Amino acid sequence: PRSKLPDVGTTIFSVIGQLSAQHNAINLSQGAPNFPCDPLLVESVSRAMREGHNQYASMLGLPALREVLAEKVLGLYGRDYDAGSEVLITGSASQGLYMAIAGLVHAGDEVIFFEPAFDSYAPVVRLQGATPIALKLQQPDFAINWDEVRAAITPRTRMIIINTPHNPSAQVLSDADLAQLAALTRHTDIVVLSDEVYEHILFDGRRHCGMATHAELAERSVVVSSFGKTFHVTGWRVGYCLAPAALMEEVVKVHQFMMFSADTPMQVGFAEYLRNPHTWLSLGEFYQRKRDLLAQALGDSPFRLLPSAGSFFMLASYGHFSDESDSEMVKRLIVDHGVATIPLSAFYTDGTDNRLIRLSFAKDDATLLLGAQALCQVL
Amino acid sequence: PRSKLPDVGTTIFSVIGQLSAQHNAINLSQGAPNFPCDPLLVESVSRAMREGHNQYASMLGLPALREVLAEKVLGLYGRDYDAGSEVLITGSASQGLYMAIAGLVHAGDEVIFFEPAFDSYAPVVRLQGATPIALKLQQPDFAINWDEVRAAITPRTRMIIINTPHNPSAQVLSDADLAQLAALTRHTDIVVLSDEVYEHILFDGRRHCGMATHAELAERSVVVSSFGKTFHVTGWRVGYCLAPAALMEEVVKVHQFMMFSADTPMQVGFAEYLRNPHTWLSLGEFYQRKRDLLAQALGDSPFRLLPSAGSFFMLASYGHFSDESDSEMVKRLIVDHGVATIPLSAFYTDGTDNRLIRLSFAKDDATLLLGAQALCQVL
Ligand SMILES: CSCCC(=O)C(=O)O
Ligand SMILES: CSCCC(=O)C(=O)O
Repeated sequence: PRSKLPDVGTTIFSVIGQLSAQHNAINLSQGAPNFPCDPLLVESVSRAMREGHNQYASMLGLPALREVLAEKVLGLYGRDYDAGSEVLITGSASQGLYMAIAGLVHAGDEVIFFEPAFDSYAPVVRLQGATPIALKLQQPDFAINWDEVRAAITPRTRMIIINTPHNPSAQVLSDADLAQLAALTRHTDIVVLSDEVYEHILFDGRRHCGMATHAELAERSVVVSSFGKTFHVTGWRVGYCLAPAALMEEVVKVHQFMMFSADTPMQVGFAEYLRNPHTWLSLGEFYQRKRDLLAQALGDSPFRLLPSAGSFFMLASYGHFSDESDSEMVKRLIVDHGVATIPLSAFYTDGTDNRLIRLSFAKDDATLLLGAQALCQVL
Repeated sequence: PRSKLPDVGTTIFSVIGQLSAQHNAINLSQGAPNFPCDPLLVESVSRAMREGHNQYASMLGLPALREVLAEKVLGLYGRDYDAGSEVLITGSASQGLYMAIAGLVHAGDEVIFFEPAFDSYAPVVRLQGATPIALKLQQPDFAINWDEVRAAITPRTRMIIINTPHNPSAQVLSDADLAQLAALTRHTDIVVLSDEVYEHILFDGRRHCGMATHAELAERSVVVSSFGKTFHVTGWRVGYCLAPAALMEEVVKVHQFMMFSADTPMQVGFAEYLRNPHTWLSLGEFYQRKRDLLAQALGDSPFRLLPSAGSFFMLASYGHFSDESDSEMVKRLIVDHGVATIPLSAFYTDGTDNRLIRLSFAKDDATLLLGAQALCQVL
C-alpha cells in the first residue's frame, strides 16, 4: 500500500532495545526503570481486579482519579481544572499527545516544535495533513531561541509543542521562557501542546515551569503527563491530559473513538494510591541521586557530560576524541563494550549529528555503575 | 477552536450510561459484562505485576502473546500469521480500528461501511480527511446488499469496513458473503478492515466467517479483535490486529507513535492464561444460554425480538405498539421503567429510526430477568 509515512522506520527505542538485548548489553537507552515500583501500588491494582473493577470505566476516566489529579495540580501549580470537563485519563502520555494533535490540528496547519525532539511529534502532525516546522534548540545549552519562534510563526501556525523537562536534552523551561511563549501566542489561535511527562523530576531545587503554573498560558494549553514515568511503571499505559474545557472538548472527541476509556483496574489502583502524594514530591531527589552517581562514575571516562536539570536523561559528548557519527558510536558501544545508549541524531528529523549520545539513569545503582564502567573503557 | 468533528457529540454509550446510572436503571445498554471474569486471569496479571513485568513491552507486543494468538488463529481459521511481523497487540480493539484507518486511509479516499454501525468508524475516517460512504444494511434481515456495494465502489475507494458478528444487528456473514467481497475487491487496492471483536460468540452451531478463514481475503485484510469481549474484561484495554506484513507495516507506523506498546502485565497475564484455550471455545454456548433466557423472559412483553445469530446483542422492535422515536422510547424506558437500552438510530449517521432498540445480554441472569420484567411493563 501507498504509505502515509514513507520516511518513517521503526522507532529508535525498538531498534536500540533489540540490538541491546541481542548483545546482552547494559541498557542505559530507553527511559524505563529496571527497578520495582511500590508494592502497595501493585496491591491496589490487584485488589481492584479482585473486587471486580474490570469493565469499561467512564469515558473521561474514573471520577475519583480525575479529582485527585485536579487537586494535585491546583495545589502544586495553581490552575483549578474542573475534574468533570478539564481532566482526561488517557491510555499513556503518547496517546494523549496523539489525541491532542489529531483533535486540534487541521490539514494545512503548521505546528512548531523544537529539535532534538521525542520522535512521535512530527509523524503525528504529518498524519493530520499538517506541516511540522522543526526549530533547533540552541547549542550548547539547548535553550529555545524565541526570536526564531517569532520569525517562524505564520497565519497557519496552529500549535506549538513544548516539552519540559526536556527529553532528550534534560533542560527545563524557566518563567522567562513562559513569558516569551505567552507574549508570542497572545491574541492568536495558537494552542500550546505541552509534554510534561517528567514534571516531577527536576534537580538542584528547580521548580517545574509547566503551563498550569502560568495563568494566561494555561488557558490555551493542553498539558500531557504520565503515571508511568512518575511511579516507575512505564508498561502500565495510563496517562492524563489537562486543558480548558473548550480545548478538551475537541481532544475528547478523538479519545472517545480512539480508545473510549483507559484501563479500569489501573485507574482504580492509582486513585487509591495517589491519596498519599508523597511519592511524586520526592521523585526529584530520587533521580538527582542517580544522576550524581552516574556522573561521578563517569568522571574517569573520556565522555564530557552536559548538565542535566530534569528528566532522567543526560547527554554526553565525544567529538573531542572521536569522529564517528553518533549512530556508529552507539552501535560500537553496544557491540564492543556492552552498553546501550541512544544517538541524539535520532531526535532530529534531518539527522543532525552533534556527536552526542543520551544516557538514561532510570536504572538501579548497580546497572548505572556497570554502564559507567563500560563507558570508561571506550578508548 | 474550530472543530474537526463539528457534528460529533458525546458517544451514545456515555450518554445512556450516565442517564442509566442517574435513574438507577437495570443496564442492558453497553456491551459490558456485569459478572466477574475468571479469577485465574486476575491472578495471572497480579503475579505478572508482582514479578516486576511493569515496564514497556516490546513495541509489537509481548512475543509469547503474539505467538499464542498466531497459533490460535491458524488452528481455528487456517491463516498462518507470522508472530514476528503480522500480529500486533493494541490498546483495545477500538484503538486497533483507529490505527488501521489512520495508517491506511489517505486524505481524499473513500471508505465504505455499513449502517447501522459502531459509532467510531465514520468519525475516524473523517479525521483522515477521507469520506465515509455509508451503505444501509437491508431490512429486515440486516444483510449486505452486494449489488449496492458494487455500485458504490469508485476509483477512490480505499477500504471497506466489515463487522462480523455484527454490532448492533447481531447478524453474521456467511461464506457466500465472503465470496462476494473477494470478487468485488479482486484486482483493486481496496483493503478490508474487519472488526471481529465478537468472533467467539456465534449461536446455533454457526461458524465464524472472518477474513482469516478466506485465503484470498486474508491477504488484503486487517482483522481487529479484542480480549475484553472474549474474557469478560472490557475495562482492560488490550486487543490485537492481524494483517499480512505489508499492510501491518503501515498500521505499526501509527501504533508506535500512538501508544508505543500495550499494557505489559496484562499481556503477560493473557499469554499465560491463553495457553489453556478452553474459554473462547465455549463462549458461544455461554452467551447462547443468556440470549435464550432473555428471549424467553421477554415472551410476554409487547416487543418483537429480531433473531440474534452472534455477538451479545439482540434487537427488539416496537413500531406495532408505539409511534415514539427510538430515542424517546429508550429515554422513557430508563426514566419510567428503570431499564436501559440503546436506540438503534444512534448507529446511523443520518439518524434513521426503524423503531428498534438494542439489548445487551452480557449480564448476569438476575439482571436479564429483572430487565425483561421491566420491559414487559412498558404498555
Ligand atoms: C516509548 S519511549 C518513551 C520515552 C522514553 O522512554 C525515552 O525517550 O526513552
Ligand atoms: C465503547 S462501547 C464498545 C462496544 C460496546 O460495548 C457496545 O456497543 O455496547
